[in-house]
Amino acid sequence: MDAIIFEALEAIVGSEFIIVDKETLHPYECDGLSVYCSLPTCVVLPASTKEVMAIMALCHQHKVTVVARGAGTGLSAGALPIEGGIVLSLARLNRILEINSESGLAQVQPGVRNLAISESASRYGFYYAPDPSSQIACSIGGNVAENAGGVHCLKYGLTVHNIVSLVFITAQGERIDVGGKSPDIAGFDFLALMTGSEGMLGIVTEITVRLLPIPELARVILAGFDKVENAANAVNALISNGIIPAGLEMMDRYAIQAAEDFAHAGYPKDAEALLLCELDGTADDVNHQLQLAQALLEAAGASSLRISDSEEERALMWKGRKSAFPAVGRLSPDYYCMDGTIPRRQLASVLAEIHRLSQHYGLRVANVFHAGDGNLHPLILFDANVPGELEQTEAFGADILRICVEAGGCITGEHGVGLEKIEQMHHQFNDAELAQFLRVKAAFDPDNLLNPGKGIPTPKHCQEHTVMKQPLSQRGSPNG
Amino acid sequence: MDAIIFEALEAIVGSEFIIVDKETLHPYECDGLSVYCSLPTCVVLPASTKEVMAIMALCHQHKVTVVARGAGTGLSAGALPIEGGIVLSLARLNRILEINSESGLAQVQPGVRNLAISESASRYGFYYAPDPSSQIACSIGGNVAENAGGVHCLKYGLTVHNIVSLVFITAQGERIDVGGKSPDIAGFDFLALMTGSEGMLGIVTEITVRLLPIPELARVILAGFDKVENAANAVNALISNGIIPAGLEMMDRYAIQAAEDFAHAGYPKDAEALLLCELDGTADDVNHQLQLAQALLEAAGASSLRISDSEEERALMWKGRKSAFPAVGRLSPDYYCMDGTIPRRQLASVLAEIHRLSQHYGLRVANVFHAGDGNLHPLILFDANVPGELEQTEAFGADILRICVEAGGCITGEHGVGLEKIEQMHHQFNDAELAQFLRVKAAFDPDNLLNPGKGIPTPKHCQEHTVMKQPLSQRGSPNG
Repeated sequence: MDAIIFEALEAIVGSEFIIVDKETLHPYECDGLSVYCSLPTCVVLPASTKEVMAIMALCHQHKVTVVARGAGTGLSAGALPIEGGIVLSLARLNRILEINSESGLAQVQPGVRNLAISESASRYGFYYAPDPSSQIACSIGGNVAENAGGVHCLKYGLTVHNIVSLVFITAQGERIDVGGKSPDIAGFDFLALMTGSEGMLGIVTEITVRLLPIPELARVILAGFDKVENAANAVNALISNGIIPAGLEMMDRYAIQAAEDFAHAGYPKDAEALLLCELDGTADDVNHQLQLAQALLEAAGASSLRISDSEEERALMWKGRKSAFPAVGRLSPDYYCMDGTIPRRQLASVLAEIHRLSQHYGLRVANVFHAGDGNLHPLILFDANVPGELEQTEAFGADILRICVEAGGCITGEHGVGLEKIEQMHHQFNDAELAQFLRVKAAFDPDNLLNPGKGIPTPKHCQEHTVMKQPLSQRGSPNG
Repeated sequence: MDAIIFEALEAIVGSEFIIVDKETLHPYECDGLSVYCSLPTCVVLPASTKEVMAIMALCHQHKVTVVARGAGTGLSAGALPIEGGIVLSLARLNRILEINSESGLAQVQPGVRNLAISESASRYGFYYAPDPSSQIACSIGGNVAENAGGVHCLKYGLTVHNIVSLVFITAQGERIDVGGKSPDIAGFDFLALMTGSEGMLGIVTEITVRLLPIPELARVILAGFDKVENAANAVNALISNGIIPAGLEMMDRYAIQAAEDFAHAGYPKDAEALLLCELDGTADDVNHQLQLAQALLEAAGASSLRISDSEEERALMWKGRKSAFPAVGRLSPDYYCMDGTIPRRQLASVLAEIHRLSQHYGLRVANVFHAGDGNLHPLILFDANVPGELEQTEAFGADILRICVEAGGCITGEHGVGLEKIEQMHHQFNDAELAQFLRVKAAFDPDNLLNPGKGIPTPKHCQEHTVMKQPLSQRGSPNG
């Protein structure tokens, strides 16, 4: 990168907010999927929308690529640095600008942590519903970039359903306001288009989110099952009987055991599958639905049932689920967290197929996932130090995503495509569809400066970047 | 249009499904906003997705413009024919392909009437929630094109929130599948982008909609008020107290009187404003919320209150509201139905301002609208035979939309921009935003063949088509 660009960046943000020394750059070399990493050349930390506009205009002028970065908790290498470009950290845009209890809206900057919104809104009796497992750390800007979900998205929707407006800065450095406080908007729906666009269309610098009233009561049912199939069928039984739980999560054998050893949440360690079903609303409604849910779970063959009797007990029940990923991590030197979605009624057959593949590859799998919305998170346990295991893990992961697509589902639920799943996009979309994605990308970013090489592959018939076709383990880091 | 194109179109759909004689073309010269009209050259009625693909490929090859048309009930001249091009009627794609009670989804063709979906789903205990006033006649394809709303959209969302996948055909004749049965999708969110895109990005030929279980009970409260302001404040009181009605509609003096004279629904004819608040859900829940709602309405100063005691009474209460537009039509030789949205808490002040403008212009206004989501439908009463009244009406309408934008709202709630509001897009968006809309349009339709001249104006700094800047009454029909 030319000295002239560095100087111009310094003039915009101040020299203390440009990182160039290797030591300080290290935390920026990967996101949460650390198997991909690459030391950036330069990280720039603006403090305002105006500074972002100036940075984007400068990068556009000099054709410098820009990778936006939130809290770095992403799981698809979406924030992996690109050689010769800058990493644009939104960490300093971390203010909650307004919480309006009358309109039920909060206006925030992208660097605000997901959980901080609910913490601030709680004094008014409100919260922000989408709650990814990483909500303590992840930023709302990253949530928008990935259209993040979470435990409560079955009832309350994904990020896209919980935001009402955005400000974003184009690749050319212009400010665009999208959405608004009224329910519909004129013009094309850029609010939804930007949400989940993984830093490829613009830099989001302001977000207005919808807040929900904290429900009067929430209670959790823990239901253990001797058979995975019965738990899967119970999920469908609940929903087809009109119960929309606030959360409906499933864990299988390894996950139950690991979570219980870690969190001591009282999970049934002898069960093959566990459902956590949270009901919320008015006290009357919750207790009425609890009775119905209990009867349905019993009819579906639950081998154990427990209902939270206090907020402490409910929190403990969730603690096991929320710590399941690191807990499973203790079972094995390495694990790889997959993310695919399927239609809910395919749960039993897809889980059986994953189990079969687990035996085929000789690799254990722990399943911990959002059962209600069919969003699977199989954790493949492996040891990167055993020659060939990483390759086997990748092949297994690719098979899982292929099964999801074949079942009518999708290669990502909430982690995004990033660099990780760019190859799988060919399973999901045909060349005409991929070409249309690229045309829309070019309509925002004709010079391909925003997170290039992520999210959308080149259609097969005109594929040049064969590096993208190699399995993960054979790829060099983009910096060499 | 060249004979060679006619012959090729005939070869695709059969000669009986191309309309060229003037008599038969007449119904296609306008949509529901009949003040704009223009006789088309040719209407083509394909019967399948494949035929649509062939028509689009042909039109692309010969650079013929295409205006898609559903049931023709639109209210923004979006389906107004364009000289030299074809009108593509989706009326023959009118089959319900599948209703799946297990997944709660219905797969339909675009020409299916909105209400026909609920009628077919009712045998399984389901219905389709978005219910525009025109639901007896309007098509689901048109609903997608305009992102239609309706009485029930406050609780259940707009069209975009109630569809899960689409098939659309590009301007080049390629098929693109978007969305799916899983809650999130990889790639850019074309499902939301297509919804509300007013025929400018592609031709939708298949839609999968989400069905909802018919609620156990629904009851309506009719609340009369002596002051419009009190009714507006009551709307906010209900919602800020956690009540999300299935519908929350407001009517003012002229509308109440006209609707009551027409439907004999028992509306209080001496009231200045009337709220219809429908609550639905389980019987317990509805009756619990009714008590709370009743108390809040009384506290807000309701001068009369009535609660439906039977399905018949509930239907009658809605009959008045649903026939309000034609009923108001009897008060005056002509009326012009506006459509703008505002943040709910601005209701009282915006209604007062509309009242002030009504006096300023000397034109009566009846307000009948979706109060809960701030979607106004002022009906301006005028007489087109009185010289100057149409111009005054247009000026008044433009003022109303300007007020909506200034209040933080939007120039359209559910009727779309079409040709009608293309000038008002400049109030809503700046040149950078309009230019970005045009770039996205070009990413789908580089030759500008899909409904050109509608929806998005040329940015002011490079405006050429000055015809768009003239007031409605001075414009010639596009056919001369």
